[in-house]
Amino acid sequence: MAKYNLRLNYIPIITMSLSKSVLITGCNRGIGLELVKQLLKLETPPKHIFATYRNPANSEELLTMAQSNPTLHPIMMSVTDQAAYDQVVQTVGEVVGEEGLNLLINNAGVLPQNRDLQAVTPQDMRDAFETNCIAPLFLSRALLPLIQKAATKSGDAAMGVAKAAIVQMSTAVASIAENSGGGTYAYRCSKSALNMSMKSLSVDLTSTGILVMAMHPGWVLTEMGGPNAQITTETCCQTMLQTLAGLTDKDHGAFLRYNNTSIPW
Amino acid sequence: MAKYNLRLNYIPIITMSLSKSVLITGCNRGIGLELVKQLLKLETPPKHIFATYRNPANSEELLTMAQSNPTLHPIMMSVTDQAAYDQVVQTVGEVVGEEGLNLLINNAGVLPQNRDLQAVTPQDMRDAFETNCIAPLFLSRALLPLIQKAATKSGDAAMGVAKAAIVQMSTAVASIAENSGGGTYAYRCSKSALNMSMKSLSVDLTSTGILVMAMHPGWVLTEMGGPNAQITTETCCQTMLQTLAGLTDKDHGAFLRYNNTSIPW
Repeated sequence: MAKYNLRLNYIPIITMSLSKSVLITGCNRGIGLELVKQLLKLETPPKHIFATYRNPANSEELLTMAQSNPTLHPIMMSVTDQAAYDQVVQTVGEVVGEEGLNLLINNAGVLPQNRDLQAVTPQDMRDAFETNCIAPLFLSRALLPLIQKAATKSGDAAMGVAKAAIVQMSTAVASIAENSGGGTYAYRCSKSALNMSMKSLSVDLTSTGILVMAMHPGWVLTEMGGPNAQITTETCCQTMLQTLAGLTDKDHGAFLRYNNTSIPW
Repeated sequence: MAKYNLRLNYIPIITMSLSKSVLITGCNRGIGLELVKQLLKLETPPKHIFATYRNPANSEELLTMAQSNPTLHPIMMSVTDQAAYDQVVQTVGEVVGEEGLNLLINNAGVLPQNRDLQAVTPQDMRDAFETNCIAPLFLSRALLPLIQKAATKSGDAAMGVAKAAIVQMSTAVASIAENSGGGTYAYRCSKSALNMSMKSLSVDLTSTGILVMAMHPGWVLTEMGGPNAQITTETCCQTMLQTLAGLTDKDHGAFLRYNNTSIPW
């Protein structure tokens, strides 16, 4: 008799409340969009989901969903536009008030097309670093007062996404230890740098009650993942939300796959 | 009876030939300058030492040394100026000819002053990434034809700095695993990214005979290291040259301290 493959096929429904409020970047498509959908489907969905997108022209699905879901607050912004952060913080702050923001998922990312040593350009490196490392660090810093508010509000509650957390969307190909394929310089370097900034942030925020970690979403059938990817966006996000819901203080500063297994640096 | 501390006090003299030709970046001061001095003192010094510097005004010692040492070729360049690479490659190529370039040490680096979470700026991140990650990768790529020439010339000789090697000057604080202090975002992220690009380069160059590795020079009493550093520049460079001289194929893609001990990613 075949056993269930717990990791990929059998996804238990999350009945717990994940977080009261969540902000996710890069929600017009792919993992960001699917995370929004899955959050809305939860038995106890978040009270507020802030979903950033860059361009209304290719964010139709997100914007249509928002029309029928008062829970969902779309926010137009480019994560690399640091000058826009103040306005975003103000918008979110006005909605969440004294409850603060429980969960920030820095999901927006870019994968430059030039992957080979002879093809990659310095500008590819800069672009990837700007979106994949600088943006998550500085958006986290900008939103920190709101996230700290949520952590303080939760008092002695255990660390986790229900209290206050920053999740940096990384990738297994950011693992230097597991880099046996070479190439992909711009993407790999920017995401290894993201892992490092996540680790420093986790150390710097140790006494705040805010959990900080890096997540590998799996090799997902998105525009970025391409047609040879291994899991659907639905499976990825269902499994990832399970893992996120189960995060505790032992995961502070960790680098985990969507299915809750650890990745070496 | 006190034993010698093999790591710090007892430095055996290198009697072997290290490399026939070496290019080192950032040689106006600190580790770069001391490496040049030590190389010139070897029993069998390299035939050619190319030492880059940015500004003649603060490179007096290097330029004075070059006047009495025909072995030493100072090259004025900024490592972040990719447009200047072609000229550098041509200059080096004309000197080394069919022998090629045996050893490239990408030593130039910057440590932005703003280290704390609240102080660091996106521009600090960009500046560090440009000098500490982008420059070493693209200068390596530009010089690759000359380094490949040296590797090919050496035929079946074992991998090592006498044959052909690229050494990326990293730092132990680039280790995500060992980051227990937090902060120092710009420097740490740029050097973790450098480690990743070194790893990809080592994979991509596997079949070329060129050795690629990352080196931590120790916490050195230089302008960058500050007054609390643990070793003198002389000890650092003597020990590091010993380690470099002993590199073999087992060190391809490795991250080593100056004293030949391994650092986790």
